[in-house]
Amino acid sequence: MKKIFIVGAGLSSTSLIDYLLRQSQKYDWQITVGDLTLESAAHKVANHPNGRAIQFDISDQLQRTTEISHADIVVSMLPGSMHSLVAKECLACEKHLLTPSYVTAEMKGMDGAFREKGLIFLNEMGVDPGIDHMSAMRVIDKIKQKGGKLLSFKSFCGGLVAPACDDNPWNYKFSWNPRNVVIAGQGIAKFKEHGQCRYVPYNQLFSTISQVEMPGYGDFEVYPNRDSLQYCELYGLEDIPTIIRGTMRRPGFCEAWNVFVQLGCADDTYIMEDSSQLSYRRYLNSFLPYRKGKSTEETLAEIIGQPLNSVIMDKIRWLGIYSDEIIGLKNATPAMILQKVLEQKWAMTESDRDLLVMQHQFEFELDGQRKRIISSMSCEGKGNENTAMSYTVGMPLAIAVKLIATDSIRPIGVQIPILPGIYNPILDELDSSGITFVEQEVNL
Amino acid sequence: MKKIFIVGAGLSSTSLIDYLLRQSQKYDWQITVGDLTLESAAHKVANHPNGRAIQFDISDQLQRTTEISHADIVVSMLPGSMHSLVAKECLACEKHLLTPSYVTAEMKGMDGAFREKGLIFLNEMGVDPGIDHMSAMRVIDKIKQKGGKLLSFKSFCGGLVAPACDDNPWNYKFSWNPRNVVIAGQGIAKFKEHGQCRYVPYNQLFSTISQVEMPGYGDFEVYPNRDSLQYCELYGLEDIPTIIRGTMRRPGFCEAWNVFVQLGCADDTYIMEDSSQLSYRRYLNSFLPYRKGKSTEETLAEIIGQPLNSVIMDKIRWLGIYSDEIIGLKNATPAMILQKVLEQKWAMTESDRDLLVMQHQFEFELDGQRKRIISSMSCEGKGNENTAMSYTVGMPLAIAVKLIATDSIRPIGVQIPILPGIYNPILDELDSSGITFVEQEVNL
Repeated sequence: MKKIFIVGAGLSSTSLIDYLLRQSQKYDWQITVGDLTLESAAHKVANHPNGRAIQFDISDQLQRTTEISHADIVVSMLPGSMHSLVAKECLACEKHLLTPSYVTAEMKGMDGAFREKGLIFLNEMGVDPGIDHMSAMRVIDKIKQKGGKLLSFKSFCGGLVAPACDDNPWNYKFSWNPRNVVIAGQGIAKFKEHGQCRYVPYNQLFSTISQVEMPGYGDFEVYPNRDSLQYCELYGLEDIPTIIRGTMRRPGFCEAWNVFVQLGCADDTYIMEDSSQLSYRRYLNSFLPYRKGKSTEETLAEIIGQPLNSVIMDKIRWLGIYSDEIIGLKNATPAMILQKVLEQKWAMTESDRDLLVMQHQFEFELDGQRKRIISSMSCEGKGNENTAMSYTVGMPLAIAVKLIATDSIRPIGVQIPILPGIYNPILDELDSSGITFVEQEVNL
Repeated sequence: MKKIFIVGAGLSSTSLIDYLLRQSQKYDWQITVGDLTLESAAHKVANHPNGRAIQFDISDQLQRTTEISHADIVVSMLPGSMHSLVAKECLACEKHLLTPSYVTAEMKGMDGAFREKGLIFLNEMGVDPGIDHMSAMRVIDKIKQKGGKLLSFKSFCGGLVAPACDDNPWNYKFSWNPRNVVIAGQGIAKFKEHGQCRYVPYNQLFSTISQVEMPGYGDFEVYPNRDSLQYCELYGLEDIPTIIRGTMRRPGFCEAWNVFVQLGCADDTYIMEDSSQLSYRRYLNSFLPYRKGKSTEETLAEIIGQPLNSVIMDKIRWLGIYSDEIIGLKNATPAMILQKVLEQKWAMTESDRDLLVMQHQFEFELDGQRKRIISSMSCEGKGNENTAMSYTVGMPLAIAVKLIATDSIRPIGVQIPILPGIYNPILDELDSSGITFVEQEVNL
């Protein structure tokens, strides 16, 4: 009987645990789910005969060693910063480890140790990163095998709200960590365009957008992600003239969000004076010049050069940010206060469902013909607990666990899913599980 | 015979050393000038009978202890980060210490130790910080003594080029550390306006400007400095509704400089790919979108919405930044490359003279009447080595040294010059030395 240990029973573990429990009798697995809160673990296990829920604290060294040494395969769904603690224990106990998180330098440094012991430490195994790597590499490898020369690679992903539940002027709700949405894009965006590296600072980011159409879902806009250049090496595209990755939003989102970016409302680097005394209106005034006799809204409209009844001003008004209510956050940065405003307005309700969209655009030359492949995937959540985000994060992880548990794949060391031996079986099963890429190929 | 030890014989020490040597026979002082390069020290001492030039390395512990223990008063003209080393030695040897630099938290922490030994550690004793504190506090204290209530305090300073030597379209040349000019204003600018704290992010800084007129020098524009709020406490202006400090440039400078800020050319946080291979044109292209068939200059003009023959485009063209010459800087940030461009164009020539301008604007209510005092100071350099910057940094330091050496002032502990006992005698002597504030007072 193979023993699989899932650490962390948060929202994004739902589909992972469901899948493994469903398959557990067929393959004779025991699935242990550990969480700081026993209730969360028990709720996910739901008394399944092959399931076991425990209260688990990763910082408890004795418990950490005990539980990991009893497992065969460990999946860490903890916050990224905690993976290295799990990884060290897995090395000591000689266990395989999977995470959905980005490989850090520290994790990369463990490659030799995992290899030596014949173990896999498989990361970036969720949706983004995860499905993006696999689906892109399958097409890239296919083009290369045919002798094609890649000229352009664009890759976009977004977590949004399903059209049927989309009832606000931003056409957006939080399906992921709100803090990451508020501070998204700070720093510099790097990509390559027509052979030239391009650097876009934060203040230009949300006006450096492009349009994209998703089959069945219509139009989206895309702003560039932070570092697309690193994907040249990762994907073996060192000489590609154009490479860019981006985040998808509904049209009009970026233009309105850019108002907050330009004003400095998303700044997370300093504490505002007397932040606990600020009303929403005074918060906004902190970023606006003084205009005698003008309301906050009128001043804002003047500063951004928009009439009061424009779509941008409508979006901002809808947030309720001109209110005289006291915010009440102590020692808060501008970003923390903006996050509070948005959490009140962009929250998913009980009945809301989310939407995950991903699209890759490849341009290449094959036998003297320039071609384009567009590969698109969309996934809607089923409800509050079964979100598209959780499904697309959990399914590739779950399938990878199965492949390792059944000895169907046997890579070792610190890995991300860019090898055909990993991505092919996983993408095939994702396809039959409703996470399907639709390809269109055209000559240019 | 009092012994005064000047550590550092760079450009900004010229007037300091000159003054002390000139007064040395009258007061029976020995002036030791130490520098890493003996030639620099010897050049400044110029064989003066009361002068002594030595090769001096602050990191040489034996020499540090020997030289400081032989002195009565030490002046550190080293980079700010090195003052604490000097300060610890002065404490051990029980010597007074003066610097032109900002008080750091570490330096502030030495207050008790300096007090205990009856020593002064006097900082921010140059021009900005230095003369700004003294000249502002004299007016603030005067208004308060009369029973006036301060409503607004604005304080501006700038180092530029003298009008007679002003021969470029930016009306600017480097009279100070070029690096600090290139990265000036990064982070957040904080000030108070009509009772409301205001926060201006970097991307808005150079468009948040105001106009100011300097007697005899015409118009300037001002952009806000980083943190004006801290001056509320420093100057005892806790309840003042408006307080802002700023940097002065000639009209039109900020609008053109803002082009580089908006594009991200002054970013100092990342290394550009293959920076050693970049030409100036390619460097600039890194921040511009691709426009088929358009030159770099045409693309830039389109992006910033300016005709090719506008004053902004003229300023940028004059920098020679469309050149295909290779820059040749390895592992360079955008800011490092921009600095190299500017150093070639904004350098002071042998015959150029600089200009230092400072203006305070006070608004206050006295006996029911609202009044304004404008206090302005300007100082032109005499030449290449006797710059206004060096004169206005060195003179207040030199006078302070004299006052301490002659026991005319006797404050102890970590100080900045905001007490009347310090600022009055220094401002009086500065006034008779050509560093004169002209006051205009009007009823509003």
